[in-house]
Amino acid sequence: MKRADHITLAHGGGGQASGELMKNVFLPAFKNPLLETLSDGALIDPPKRGKLAFSTDTFVIDPIFFPGGDIGSLSVHGTVNDLAVSGAIPKYLSAGFVIEEGFSIAELKKIVASMAEAAKNCGVSIVTGDTKVVPKGHADKLFINTTGIGFVPEGIDISAKNIIDGDIVILSGTIGDHGTAVLTRRKGLEFDTEIVSDSTPLNSLVEAMLKAEPNIRMMRDPTRGGLSASLCEIASISGKGIVIEEALIPVSVAVRSVCEILGLDPIHVANEGKLVAFVPSDSAENVLKAMKKVACGKEASIIGRVGGCPAGRVEMKTSFIGNRIIEPVIGDQLPRIC
Amino acid sequence: MKRADHITLAHGGGGQASGELMKNVFLPAFKNPLLETLSDGALIDPPKRGKLAFSTDTFVIDPIFFPGGDIGSLSVHGTVNDLAVSGAIPKYLSAGFVIEEGFSIAELKKIVASMAEAAKNCGVSIVTGDTKVVPKGHADKLFINTTGIGFVPEGIDISAKNIIDGDIVILSGTIGDHGTAVLTRRKGLEFDTEIVSDSTPLNSLVEAMLKAEPNIRMMRDPTRGGLSASLCEIASISGKGIVIEEALIPVSVAVRSVCEILGLDPIHVANEGKLVAFVPSDSAENVLKAMKKVACGKEASIIGRVGGCPAGRVEMKTSFIGNRIIEPVIGDQLPRIC
Repeated sequence: MKRADHITLAHGGGGQASGELMKNVFLPAFKNPLLETLSDGALIDPPKRGKLAFSTDTFVIDPIFFPGGDIGSLSVHGTVNDLAVSGAIPKYLSAGFVIEEGFSIAELKKIVASMAEAAKNCGVSIVTGDTKVVPKGHADKLFINTTGIGFVPEGIDISAKNIIDGDIVILSGTIGDHGTAVLTRRKGLEFDTEIVSDSTPLNSLVEAMLKAEPNIRMMRDPTRGGLSASLCEIASISGKGIVIEEALIPVSVAVRSVCEILGLDPIHVANEGKLVAFVPSDSAENVLKAMKKVACGKEASIIGRVGGCPAGRVEMKTSFIGNRIIEPVIGDQLPRIC
Repeated sequence: MKRADHITLAHGGGGQASGELMKNVFLPAFKNPLLETLSDGALIDPPKRGKLAFSTDTFVIDPIFFPGGDIGSLSVHGTVNDLAVSGAIPKYLSAGFVIEEGFSIAELKKIVASMAEAAKNCGVSIVTGDTKVVPKGHADKLFINTTGIGFVPEGIDISAKNIIDGDIVILSGTIGDHGTAVLTRRKGLEFDTEIVSDSTPLNSLVEAMLKAEPNIRMMRDPTRGGLSASLCEIASISGKGIVIEEALIPVSVAVRSVCEILGLDPIHVANEGKLVAFVPSDSAENVLKAMKKVACGKEASIIGRVGGCPAGRVEMKTSFIGNRIIEPVIGDQLPRIC
């Protein structure tokens, strides 16, 4: 191993090596006028109307390359999606890297290129960043924090508090793909499947949905903790009961098989390119139609409705055993899934 | 060790344990209406005029408690200072935690309380966050990313490109305190000194400076890489030569002694509560007077001037050997210093 091909502590020291990493790796990939000022903070023109959305996420996924993506694209999609489900048009990202000494610079370049491509596809700019290097064994390969700013157009108000009885619950596609795709690549758990992560940006989908119905009550992307965690949190914040129907939830045959073998329930498994939306009942069909026109919404389905069970509770109608109360998973089925 | 007293993988799983950590640790400390919505992104009213400043930093300091601060207060001061030297009034922070499995919840509470107190002192709110837990050995204790939004008032324009020949270089106080304070607490390097980190927020100081002279050309807080890295970067971006005088740079006796023993040069050592400013020559005395009225600016000094050496270069007049060319440090003297 040549020293120059790997990250050293000096790359995080703020001196000459840090400057070279910036010049050779980050600037060429992320190039934009704001980042190129090399100042301590990026200066941004605020929107004339509406609100700012502000969201953060750190990505610690293992392995860093997985079927359907890598930690770079995931770190862009994850924060873009958090902004999108807040009703915002994602605009600017920061990127904070923690790199383990000895990490390959070629792999770092691959990941940074993947971030840059993802950012371009989402229409966002990576305008400010930070890199820390820690000694070997003090971190596992690479962690990436992305924090984003989006602009929420005037009149858009996405909040669980808006939900009323009778609202329709729509899921944008199959669940469990990301979690099972990553799991089947974990050391010691390798599985021969064709499952691919659903990691993808949702901002175009959200835009189409809000065009069809500006009064969408609430949206969330069910990542860690899966669909169950998102629905339970929404039920708790809104103080409403939510009833969903198991038969209506899209799960691919491959994901279902892997989950059965490993004793997982797909509703607890992480997704990285799905959203669940609560929409007024009289516009549900319109929203669904708009979603199906966007690639990542083709398999969108109505999966349930608000009301019909006690306040704050999520119930699932099953094919065999009647209604089952859904609770967020207690432990952590899959550490380092995102 | 009782399991309930320590962070488990479940605390990062997005399910019930994650919710409890939020409810018991983060919400009570950071409480504010934006965070309490528990949504994926915080919604913020943009400023009517001026610009947004946006800055990020990840803190990986070792040890996490050190004389004069801890990773919590440092993570707030660090990003607040990056915003302040951009000319912004710091407003909102995000907080992203990566925690090693087994970390003490009591220590986490202490760090979170320290962040909350620091945020209060700086007048900023921690409005959105994220927590990831990685298996034991995949990270060292705790890393914190903070990303901040500040509002830059109309008419303020801090940029190295504004610097002209004859501008005066002012340093806000002694250098080297943070780096040496942390170093003397490192395992295997323990030193018996009274050196305390200078970790402190600079936003009130910057406010007083901009009131005295709204046309300050450029400011930077010399953290990693020390004063030398900041000056060299500013010389390179501005294309100006900078001459400073060694005898005018304040260094405490204790810091000087430790640096001599360890073979360090204080101008390369990290600071966490200092800034270097480039001001028009005719207002330098006014700015200096305003700085000295603020606690963290009491020892502010004029240390040099723009011009008098080749473009893009930093030179230091020394007492004995004439002028010395200053270059950013090549290696990393002190890994995990911030």
